[in-house]
Amino acid sequence: MNIKPVPYICEMLTLSSRGQLMPPSPIRKLVPYAEAAKKKGFKVYHLNIGQPDIETPEQILNAVRHADFKVLEYSHSAGNESYRRKLVTYYKKAGIEVDHTQIIVTTGGSEAILFGFMACLDPGDEVIIPEPFYANYNGFAVAAGVKVVPVTSHIESGFALPPIAAFEQLVTPKTKAILICNPNNPTGYLYSREEMETLKLIVKKHNLYLFSDEAYREFSYVGEPMSAMQLAGIEENVILMDTISKRYSACGGRIGALVTKNQHVLDGVMKFAQARLSPPSFAQILGEAAVDLPDNYFDGTKAEYKKRRDVLVKRLNEMEGVTCPNPGGAFYAMARLPIDDCDKFCQWLLEDFSYNGATVMLAPATGFYGTPGLGKNEVRLAYVLNVNDLNKAMDCLQEALKVYPGKK
Amino acid sequence: MNIKPVPYICEMLTLSSRGQLMPPSPIRKLVPYAEAAKKKGFKVYHLNIGQPDIETPEQILNAVRHADFKVLEYSHSAGNESYRRKLVTYYKKAGIEVDHTQIIVTTGGSEAILFGFMACLDPGDEVIIPEPFYANYNGFAVAAGVKVVPVTSHIESGFALPPIAAFEQLVTPKTKAILICNPNNPTGYLYSREEMETLKLIVKKHNLYLFSDEAYREFSYVGEPMSAMQLAGIEENVILMDTISKRYSACGGRIGALVTKNQHVLDGVMKFAQARLSPPSFAQILGEAAVDLPDNYFDGTKAEYKKRRDVLVKRLNEMEGVTCPNPGGAFYAMARLPIDDCDKFCQWLLEDFSYNGATVMLAPATGFYGTPGLGKNEVRLAYVLNVNDLNKAMDCLQEALKVYPGKK
Repeated sequence: MNIKPVPYICEMLTLSSRGQLMPPSPIRKLVPYAEAAKKKGFKVYHLNIGQPDIETPEQILNAVRHADFKVLEYSHSAGNESYRRKLVTYYKKAGIEVDHTQIIVTTGGSEAILFGFMACLDPGDEVIIPEPFYANYNGFAVAAGVKVVPVTSHIESGFALPPIAAFEQLVTPKTKAILICNPNNPTGYLYSREEMETLKLIVKKHNLYLFSDEAYREFSYVGEPMSAMQLAGIEENVILMDTISKRYSACGGRIGALVTKNQHVLDGVMKFAQARLSPPSFAQILGEAAVDLPDNYFDGTKAEYKKRRDVLVKRLNEMEGVTCPNPGGAFYAMARLPIDDCDKFCQWLLEDFSYNGATVMLAPATGFYGTPGLGKNEVRLAYVLNVNDLNKAMDCLQEALKVYPGKK
Repeated sequence: MNIKPVPYICEMLTLSSRGQLMPPSPIRKLVPYAEAAKKKGFKVYHLNIGQPDIETPEQILNAVRHADFKVLEYSHSAGNESYRRKLVTYYKKAGIEVDHTQIIVTTGGSEAILFGFMACLDPGDEVIIPEPFYANYNGFAVAAGVKVVPVTSHIESGFALPPIAAFEQLVTPKTKAILICNPNNPTGYLYSREEMETLKLIVKKHNLYLFSDEAYREFSYVGEPMSAMQLAGIEENVILMDTISKRYSACGGRIGALVTKNQHVLDGVMKFAQARLSPPSFAQILGEAAVDLPDNYFDGTKAEYKKRRDVLVKRLNEMEGVTCPNPGGAFYAMARLPIDDCDKFCQWLLEDFSYNGATVMLAPATGFYGTPGLGKNEVRLAYVLNVNDLNKAMDCLQEALKVYPGKK
């Protein structure tokens, strides 16, 4: 032994910068307050998180239950070929023409986003994202060392795509991508065909990647959504990030996909996919079975979500001082409330308020904005409860707004 | 519209540097040659990949088949609490004392490695790894921007831990961690208690993280393995990276765990875990059921692997010019062959050789070394086939070595 043990100084062991910078989940930070409220015996209506209550179709759960194999093996790193071939059919029905080699099955939509960032963007590169945006984009950006540049959309215009000039102002030599979520989480906004064509122009002019998160494709209430994959002339730029989580109420399966016609990106992403060996096997079976669900499957879920949306938006706009644009898709709505601070308000709802033995959990909008200070009087509501519960939740909110000390 | 479309110049869309640097899987690169051999009608004995043929216990598959739920929900980001509490029992039996808050369930061991690198190491930081090492560590290091510094272990000493002086020579101000795999993939080497104590001294002296990949814990043939979690005095430094993949032949489940007593690391990792929402739900059910397998479950699998190891090592050492140390654990062996170049040889086996209508697929050792040029006459063999097939595979190899044009 030629070294001498020295005293152990734990302080020197540090987290990485990104480990420190990594934002905690803004949605989950209120969880301890919700748990405390439940311990006190209150019913908590959860409108804070995109966990659908719609049942996972029995038929696809049965596919997993009855799967016949002896060894739970690694799948192909890009996902089972049989599943990818099935997905070609699914995408065809959605108006997206791809072949199975252009699909890489991922561990949830989350991994599709991470792989896209990792393979396409270098540390320091910038990605422009219309805000408010899905908060976890921040997390994947920190993991990849990428800078998120927010371009603000406004509640007054129902969170429409910001004007092209607003994008132009933000483009720098470091800009390498635009990321959209369509239909949008958290706003529920559905981009029009014209807005998609506008995005195409910006993408083309500056030769950017267009990352398109289309997790909520089936939930559109104002006509068919246009996929970024349908934009002619920027086929090499578009990277679709997808997931079965919301589509089939299968969030726990952790199955998504990265889809692109850009072979270089596929080759790059494939190396990340190989490093982590394979996506989960059980839920690939489930996802494959889901493509065989009857064509009218989504009619039912869509009608249910639309009914809830109508109730939620109506109830909100009837409350004094509340504005809620009517969302065209997904199962979220953003509302402006007559309050001082949404973080305080959401915590107060759980800590200090109840009505008829219940309260409501909302997501403060500040977590969805990249620009500090924005969204302070807004909240996101996920309409993942049945109409009856949704009405009771709205009763709570209505009463809460009457008595909240920070009312404005 | 205030911008004018410009011609689309696809060449400007580039992959990220890490997307380009990311190494393709060295094990999977021979797959097209294996497929071609099969198309020609040859039987290919797969000793190239750590996919066990041992059946996944029926009892744990049944737990998934009979799981009763209506909605396949996200689990807790750290994994189901019921599973984490069960894992405490598992670890206790393995001589590791932790509580459930010190366990974060991950999507395979792969994600535990990625999370550990991401949360603890900054881009440019160095991690020392005894080589030959599991090739995918390279991939996770590229993803995290971390530099792998190999310290060479040698076939002459059976791939024992390199001497402490060899580590000392490589420590720089950038060194932040040592990563070991014990029992080792690809060498099968099982670190002795004395070697673990040596590691402790280095870790303590330089205040490094000790990442310990213990995927093969149960497969040790020379006494009980010592876990890094059992090293007294460096509790804050040790991060265990674990997986159920090999333990229960459940590779496709994609369930692993990151375990540590360092609360800062747990907090940091938890933020990455929240960003990706949750680990797969189905396989958590499987993993939870696995902890209830009878205590003698591993006796059977271990006895089977030991029998295979004995056959494999004996057969290899009987071949002229072949050296194969007897591995103490896991289900891999590294052998030195009388050949010019293992990459060429492994490809030649698939492209140009057959014996009794069959050939054998091996993993070239070059992919497991970080130092260029090392391992050129070594191969890794995974003994994941039954003894009968293993003997036939050894017959092939024996004949191949007689006729290989690049014989040395």
